[in-house]
Amino acid sequence: MTTKTIPELRQYYERKFDKHCLSIEAPLEMVKPMLYSLKNGGKRLRPLMVLLVIDIFEQANLKDGLSTAFALEYIHTYSLIHDDLPAMDNDDLRRGQPTNHVQFDEATAILAGDALLTDAFALIAQEAKLKPRQRLKLIELLSRSAGSTGMVAGQLFDIRAENQTLTIEALKNIHRLKTGRLFSYACQAGAIISDASDKELKLIDEFAQAFGLAYQIHNDLQDVLLDSQSTGKEEHGDESLHKATYPSLLGVDGAKAALEAEIETMHQVIFRLTKETRKDFNRLIAFLEYLNIQVKEQKA
Amino acid sequence: MTTKTIPELRQYYERKFDKHCLSIEAPLEMVKPMLYSLKNGGKRLRPLMVLLVIDIFEQANLKDGLSTAFALEYIHTYSLIHDDLPAMDNDDLRRGQPTNHVQFDEATAILAGDALLTDAFALIAQEAKLKPRQRLKLIELLSRSAGSTGMVAGQLFDIRAENQTLTIEALKNIHRLKTGRLFSYACQAGAIISDASDKELKLIDEFAQAFGLAYQIHNDLQDVLLDSQSTGKEEHGDESLHKATYPSLLGVDGAKAALEAEIETMHQVIFRLTKETRKDFNRLIAFLEYLNIQVKEQKA
Repeated sequence: MTTKTIPELRQYYERKFDKHCLSIEAPLEMVKPMLYSLKNGGKRLRPLMVLLVIDIFEQANLKDGLSTAFALEYIHTYSLIHDDLPAMDNDDLRRGQPTNHVQFDEATAILAGDALLTDAFALIAQEAKLKPRQRLKLIELLSRSAGSTGMVAGQLFDIRAENQTLTIEALKNIHRLKTGRLFSYACQAGAIISDASDKELKLIDEFAQAFGLAYQIHNDLQDVLLDSQSTGKEEHGDESLHKATYPSLLGVDGAKAALEAEIETMHQVIFRLTKETRKDFNRLIAFLEYLNIQVKEQKA
Repeated sequence: MTTKTIPELRQYYERKFDKHCLSIEAPLEMVKPMLYSLKNGGKRLRPLMVLLVIDIFEQANLKDGLSTAFALEYIHTYSLIHDDLPAMDNDDLRRGQPTNHVQFDEATAILAGDALLTDAFALIAQEAKLKPRQRLKLIELLSRSAGSTGMVAGQLFDIRAENQTLTIEALKNIHRLKTGRLFSYACQAGAIISDASDKELKLIDEFAQAFGLAYQIHNDLQDVLLDSQSTGKEEHGDESLHKATYPSLLGVDGAKAALEAEIETMHQVIFRLTKETRKDFNRLIAFLEYLNIQVKEQKA
């Protein structure tokens, strides 16, 4: 087995995902709004996490993880379509393109999201390359990570927190649910496909939670430091909704310190993971580089 | 094993469902809008179909089907919440009560629907009373029946058909997808849990499709013949959206004839099912009575 870099994994993923998109069997009117958002050039962070963890464990083939990676991309994409709706964050632009409900209409956007969410589960259930036990574990965890105890609850709390004064702990809880749980799913899915132990799964969850917070703090900092052009979002999206952010609660320097603390946690968990598995989990740090998150000198 | 009537099955189901609802683990803010719609007094038609088919086959225990029945109720409930949204059918009342987005708000209604849809799959995935192979089949079929090749596509076609002239075949196609596929899932789920053969599953699908159309024609006829009070919907909902219905395309007498034709098909399929399985599939006809759909004299 050869180890792959994230750009190499991405190239592999994009090729397979393009092929997958051509194979979707639904009626054209239904497929069009689904593909519009699926192919709207995301960073493919979550699918790449599935694949990198598989590549690190060296127990399964990358292709064993593709259906799960696609399913995760479906779920992430549906969540963006619904989050952008007028009744939610009311965003007209996503990655510099019109959002789904602007390009089509609200009803279509709601339904395209519903279809992506629903279809995700058949992708995993029918994956003959995975053992039935693995498929069931992947489905149950995906449902729990994305549903009423996970991402959707995070989105509800996020909406309800508009114009509210939040503590940093309340903000962390929103991000843990809203973005952290899917990152954690991505990493754990790669581990489940690699037949990892429960102890390994738990460590991987810890890593992903720290990564998720780092990702969010970095995003918040970028929103403060960059203008709308380079983020591809509408200007000051969070601010116009009066949403709490790390910099608004901790100041820019406080947010930077919080980011470094999460990165430090990532390193500590990676150390324990490497010890536990005797596999090169240091490779996970490459995701920080992939996202242009400034990496401090690694401690010896 | 004792055979149960539909009212007896309903009593059993409601008791178990109430208990299930108390066990939902999500945060209270999330559970409240979910339970509001789950407990809004539906007829429980789909879950009862799962249970009656299990009762007819006499191969599995009723309790083996409960998780699947709950999952189906989740999916049906989410679809009603989203269908009622302002961007969709814009209904203020559902079964005589304020719709979810009226009782709470649009964002909450979208998210409560998303949560119900997502959570449904974990209910089946974690059901230890079913074999892994059965769980995977139930999950895959639920995803396909409810997603981009099933119910959601039907809802998209339905929305797009507003103010359009439809052929009766186009109308049938909408109903087959929008309501027929979940009825079919309900009956097939009971059969999968009973380890039915593929041939039996196919016949059960045929029955459910005819039942689904009969159900829809009956609903359309009721909307014409009854006033808003007794249906619990807003007056002339379909008409105000300029939606095609069986009576609008075929006239009241033509719609009644179409209803009788579907009931005749149901009888024919039941005859073949009874012959194939040597089980009393005539019991399925009780659903017509349950819905107060007038049953013609059965042919000898």
